[in-house]
Amino acid sequence: MSLELGLSVPAKIGMSVGDVETPALIIDLDAFERNLSKMRNVVEKQGVGLRAHAKAHKSADIAHRQMEVGGAHGFCCQKVSEATVLVDSGITDILVSNQIVHPAKIARLIDLGKRALIRVCVDDAQNVHDLSQAAITGEAEIGCLVEIDVGAGRCGVNPGKDAAVLAQQIADAPGLRFDGLQAYNGSAQHCIEATERQALFDTVVQKVEQTLVALNEAGLACPIVSGAGTGTFQKEAASGVFTELQAGTYCLMDASYMTVRNLEGGQEVPFENAMFLQCTVMSAARPGKVVCDGGHKSHAVDSGLPILVDVDGAAYVGCNDEHGIINDPKNQLKLKDKIRLIPGHCDPTCNLHDYLVGVRNGIVETVWPVTARGKLW
Amino acid sequence: MSLELGLSVPAKIGMSVGDVETPALIIDLDAFERNLSKMRNVVEKQGVGLRAHAKAHKSADIAHRQMEVGGAHGFCCQKVSEATVLVDSGITDILVSNQIVHPAKIARLIDLGKRALIRVCVDDAQNVHDLSQAAITGEAEIGCLVEIDVGAGRCGVNPGKDAAVLAQQIADAPGLRFDGLQAYNGSAQHCIEATERQALFDTVVQKVEQTLVALNEAGLACPIVSGAGTGTFQKEAASGVFTELQAGTYCLMDASYMTVRNLEGGQEVPFENAMFLQCTVMSAARPGKVVCDGGHKSHAVDSGLPILVDVDGAAYVGCNDEHGIINDPKNQLKLKDKIRLIPGHCDPTCNLHDYLVGVRNGIVETVWPVTARGKLW
Repeated sequence: MSLELGLSVPAKIGMSVGDVETPALIIDLDAFERNLSKMRNVVEKQGVGLRAHAKAHKSADIAHRQMEVGGAHGFCCQKVSEATVLVDSGITDILVSNQIVHPAKIARLIDLGKRALIRVCVDDAQNVHDLSQAAITGEAEIGCLVEIDVGAGRCGVNPGKDAAVLAQQIADAPGLRFDGLQAYNGSAQHCIEATERQALFDTVVQKVEQTLVALNEAGLACPIVSGAGTGTFQKEAASGVFTELQAGTYCLMDASYMTVRNLEGGQEVPFENAMFLQCTVMSAARPGKVVCDGGHKSHAVDSGLPILVDVDGAAYVGCNDEHGIINDPKNQLKLKDKIRLIPGHCDPTCNLHDYLVGVRNGIVETVWPVTARGKLW
Repeated sequence: MSLELGLSVPAKIGMSVGDVETPALIIDLDAFERNLSKMRNVVEKQGVGLRAHAKAHKSADIAHRQMEVGGAHGFCCQKVSEATVLVDSGITDILVSNQIVHPAKIARLIDLGKRALIRVCVDDAQNVHDLSQAAITGEAEIGCLVEIDVGAGRCGVNPGKDAAVLAQQIADAPGLRFDGLQAYNGSAQHCIEATERQALFDTVVQKVEQTLVALNEAGLACPIVSGAGTGTFQKEAASGVFTELQAGTYCLMDASYMTVRNLEGGQEVPFENAMFLQCTVMSAARPGKVVCDGGHKSHAVDSGLPILVDVDGAAYVGCNDEHGIINDPKNQLKLKDKIRLIPGHCDPTCNLHDYLVGVRNGIVETVWPVTARGKLW
């Protein structure tokens, strides 16, 4: 990959933030570090582990900071290839919080288990069989968490007895180790109504407890109960049943989570926004409106449009692949102005960029590669 | 970049399509080539140029095929960095169909003009000044198209006199050459109602003609009128005022354009879908529903969810970052099955992938890098 500025790399260390190529993701390092501290304080106070989700940022540099100063003991990944590049960077404890079913992927997962502590989620007896066969062939052992459906209706077996049956199959399978439960409800994270979020969380805990009873009846120890996200992590931390938290977005935040934060008063989601998409006004051909150079290829809109900051009364109102439409009724923006957007959704936005530009006091302090960008497998 | 299979590369030449890593973009080479032929037939019959838009696929390999067998004489890009990698691949005629305003980008644009025939769109007198100064400094000449707003309300000066004034400024500016007009209305492309699309197109032509009159009155020749997309290209081709077409998606297609095609009967948009996202069923924990491994990080949903093909009565109904939810009321899909999706929107979907896997008769014939993937500047 060419490392030429403006071709693949958006910034050089020491340059002014205003000179960074646009569109580029800017990390406010002070805010990022405060977010790390806030999370560390919660997990230390509650005595739970932090298995931060690397799917949010896909950056080995961020992962290492989460570990070194942010209280993380391990990481989640969604893909074997994502886990591979983190292991390559020196991370030694990863849960692939997803089902891995393709034979070639399973073989690589097992292989990765020889270089680091690797666990994977399972919700299917056939998959248990396939993983076991690959572990035998690869002469390795791998840890499995039974994923239970705690309300999302996505992956996961039914809580209770069904989960215990699968756990027993894992425990009986050569090369596999039953390590615990995966219990994550993504829809609870972004629920903006506090009572509804609490109800969704209560359901999660009830389903976990029901499963712990079934496991106990089956005589199976359950060392790990893993779950939680940025929207509910304080509930899981205080629940007494979760042993580790999987929050990811908390360190950078996005417009979707800022909405949750602002509606609930910052108690449950205490983080500040630390990631901005810096853009340039590229067209100002008519009054009351400008066009910036950030569109679908530089931020993801699946959770809504980005929020324009710093410009009173102006708003990002529309999006094409390489253009953003900004209503500016007071005509404050002019050609070549830099603007900052809070992307709608952190995870797929980071995945659009090769680099994150870390800035402090207006100066580029670091340029982090998005190590697992595009690692789809 | 590591070229390891399953880490960065999804397929090897000669493998069965069923063995390709998922999620991966599969190009049906027969359908792709038929699409190229259909477009070539139109431009040859109508005697217009084809300046195919490389923003759709970002692949130098596809661009070279569009040129060698598809009738294209040149290409559009949206970004200087996108144009740079195409020039690196041997493409010699590129219009950056966008405004370039950042000084560093302008310098690179001018520099690129020494290696290829480069043009750029302009809609601002300040930008004309900046481009001219950079051309003087760089000791190069660059061609400019005045972008006129033909109904999209995005970039572009007003048609008619305003456009002629800007064209005169370009003609008078040292280092710049007034080469013609950019007249593109993106919203007309995806308009599914035929009468409404025709009305939008009629407005485009009326605004172009009004501008041609104003340019003529100013004594300015206008060698190029560039515009059109996959949804309206036959209208521009037959209009008598457009000299070249900027269609991009036509060679691969997507669910959004397939909807336009199907509603208008295939006369105006005669192309077939040639790009699929191949996925694997990764969870089948409950009846009537499965989960596949393709979500926001492997296809863009800004134009709607992808369409599941080949599975009667089943549909892709929901999406998370790495998961797709498929309703399968007849329980036809089982764990590890491969499925094919038509992505909602071609351009931002290609931009999520490092490679396109070209398949014929079920065998991988070629693996094309997405050369300009992530080239945001």
